[in-house]
Amino acid sequence: MIKNITNVRGIKCWGAHTGVKSMRRDLAIIYSEQPGSVGAVFTRNQVVAEPIKLSKKHAADGTAQAIIINAGNANACTGEQGYLGAVAMAETLAKEYGIAPESVIVASTGIIGEPFPTEDIVEGIKDNANKISKKSSAGTLVANAILTTDTFAKEGFVEFFLDEYEVNMGGVAKGSGMIHPNMGTMLAFIVTDAAIEPSLLQKTVQECADESFNMITVDGDTSTNDMVVVLANGMAGNDLISEASQASYGVFRQQLLELMSHLAKLIVSDGEGSSKFVQYEVEKANDVEKARRIVREISDSTLVKTAMFGRDPNWGRIVAAAGNAGVDFDYTRVDLFLGDEKTQVQVLKQGVPYAFDRNFMKRLLRESHIHIRMVLNEGDASAIGWGTDLTTDYVLFNSVYTT
Amino acid sequence: MIKNITNVRGIKCWGAHTGVKSMRRDLAIIYSEQPGSVGAVFTRNQVVAEPIKLSKKHAADGTAQAIIINAGNANACTGEQGYLGAVAMAETLAKEYGIAPESVIVASTGIIGEPFPTEDIVEGIKDNANKISKKSSAGTLVANAILTTDTFAKEGFVEFFLDEYEVNMGGVAKGSGMIHPNMGTMLAFIVTDAAIEPSLLQKTVQECADESFNMITVDGDTSTNDMVVVLANGMAGNDLISEASQASYGVFRQQLLELMSHLAKLIVSDGEGSSKFVQYEVEKANDVEKARRIVREISDSTLVKTAMFGRDPNWGRIVAAAGNAGVDFDYTRVDLFLGDEKTQVQVLKQGVPYAFDRNFMKRLLRESHIHIRMVLNEGDASAIGWGTDLTTDYVLFNSVYTT
Repeated sequence: MIKNITNVRGIKCWGAHTGVKSMRRDLAIIYSEQPGSVGAVFTRNQVVAEPIKLSKKHAADGTAQAIIINAGNANACTGEQGYLGAVAMAETLAKEYGIAPESVIVASTGIIGEPFPTEDIVEGIKDNANKISKKSSAGTLVANAILTTDTFAKEGFVEFFLDEYEVNMGGVAKGSGMIHPNMGTMLAFIVTDAAIEPSLLQKTVQECADESFNMITVDGDTSTNDMVVVLANGMAGNDLISEASQASYGVFRQQLLELMSHLAKLIVSDGEGSSKFVQYEVEKANDVEKARRIVREISDSTLVKTAMFGRDPNWGRIVAAAGNAGVDFDYTRVDLFLGDEKTQVQVLKQGVPYAFDRNFMKRLLRESHIHIRMVLNEGDASAIGWGTDLTTDYVLFNSVYTT
Repeated sequence: MIKNITNVRGIKCWGAHTGVKSMRRDLAIIYSEQPGSVGAVFTRNQVVAEPIKLSKKHAADGTAQAIIINAGNANACTGEQGYLGAVAMAETLAKEYGIAPESVIVASTGIIGEPFPTEDIVEGIKDNANKISKKSSAGTLVANAILTTDTFAKEGFVEFFLDEYEVNMGGVAKGSGMIHPNMGTMLAFIVTDAAIEPSLLQKTVQECADESFNMITVDGDTSTNDMVVVLANGMAGNDLISEASQASYGVFRQQLLELMSHLAKLIVSDGEGSSKFVQYEVEKANDVEKARRIVREISDSTLVKTAMFGRDPNWGRIVAAAGNAGVDFDYTRVDLFLGDEKTQVQVLKQGVPYAFDRNFMKRLLRESHIHIRMVLNEGDASAIGWGTDLTTDYVLFNSVYTT
């Protein structure tokens, strides 16, 4: 049996079917017996779904006790009717548990621009609020109930010690690729029984999301509904983490990053129509933000992605995409390596081609996991990101959705 | 007979075959009997081809008399060997015509990272320098000799009056999509017999390129070799245009923009593997740069492009892509229209869906020319751009190139 969010002290949950989606579960409830600190990162898209607006308000005081998520309708471009629907979700759940509506985080994923089915979802919440459970299967139901076009549920769990107290941290996520009929919403919900002060949790969540969820790409777009929420209820009993200088903070941050990276990689692995998982590394940059921008530019390049689909060691596209990232670097110092997880072959040395065995390279690029490593040779900063190839299946899948 | 660059006073040209490309012409010469003002825009990619480095120097004084272009080898990532090759191209041509090497602009397009075939190209220049001609067919040979994976040659010509003097302006271009094995270089060379002061020409070229060549996308990338050059030799006899306040400046700028837009749209029409030409319009923005960024973001979105391929009126993807452009706007004021060249149907009104006839829309989206118009309703600025759809053919074509 896999450990999951139900192994976090005080966490109960459930995944249900309200009928918004015809055949699959579409409502998830995560509840903590004690209120906790909350850290959250929301989409940077200018077009913001209604639940994002509400949840920003509810997370503003740094505390929360429950998360309610519906799938099948994104509640975006729905105007006041949609906003009132999000409010109704929070109020209905809050009333069921006798807590304040402001302690409920609300998330949605699915179709953009359809009227929000408030009544069905409110009924669903009332019918299912008392079903929340600590059984492992309930956690798996949550992971399934938040899916849209995902082909598998995404869960993760880590356990570690803080001040000799055992701490549990579990998460569920959904991603990526495009959702009927619109953008691929990325959602992740993480719960832990660690005790950590809200503003420090918020800082950690932002930083770790920047190193994990913000370093993956399938479409190169962010959706109207993206949200990462971490709820820490403190029931592990560790000394409250309140300063970044505490040793326990370093452990917590490392574990959170590991869990987020695990979930982020699962999202990429489920990229619609992709045939390969590609890890991009930019090393020896003089600035971490520069390294990240280059990783993102390469991993978003349709030319690089189609080359990966075609097992083509097309280093020129990789270098030119890097040059397009809008940051300064000296390409006459750049080394580039291509290969699979175990073996990477140098193809560029100080900006000029470096002879390699094309047959050996083609065998490497047949692997399902590809590594691309660019070394700028100008400093000590680095970044890692993950993406997919671009396939004919992706185009077919995404070209015939709403019609 | 079509008018082209050979109809510009003093312009002679030729397109030849040196053998760098096996079957097609690969060397173009454009020569002006009198030296002229030059305005040029070069790639913003950090990775810059050797001829770009040289031509920046040669254009720095605002004058030029000849342009030499080779196709088949991009002379990028070639180090000192490549730079010396570009120098040799300029020096060889200059010697043939008894002009200074600094008055020669050099451009290259083709494979990145292969050693530059300097000897073949120098021989080719020597063999062909005396073949330059004012015959219309020579202009067409130039348009053909600069192509790589383009499927047709791209020419344009306008004639107009400045101070009652007839002025001619002609251009050739190549683009877009990816070139074996790398980025799709965009080149455009325009010659005119207008008389215009160099610094004012430079300003005009930059502005018009921003409104034309910089508003098209096939891959969303800029290459290592992109270059737009305008040579104005003054042989029309008009009063020198030296101030933007002159009436003749407005006429010149308008004609240059029209010619550049014509060439830019030809490049998009030849986008590799595309099945549709899509015009994007963003209107009533409060800032022109904002409008342009939104146009670029929508036209670069793989999700929007695959939807166009699938004839899918997927307005949610368009709105969400706009929201991703990194600029502020209020989406609750946004109107959106989709359709073909003649008929556009409103699908979004003040940020919420606006009912439309799906069958009628599907018929519109079957057209080869699609118009997408987004109205922000916040100001008076607007922008127009052009792009393609993303097709399965594009992926197949770009996935199997160097292997």
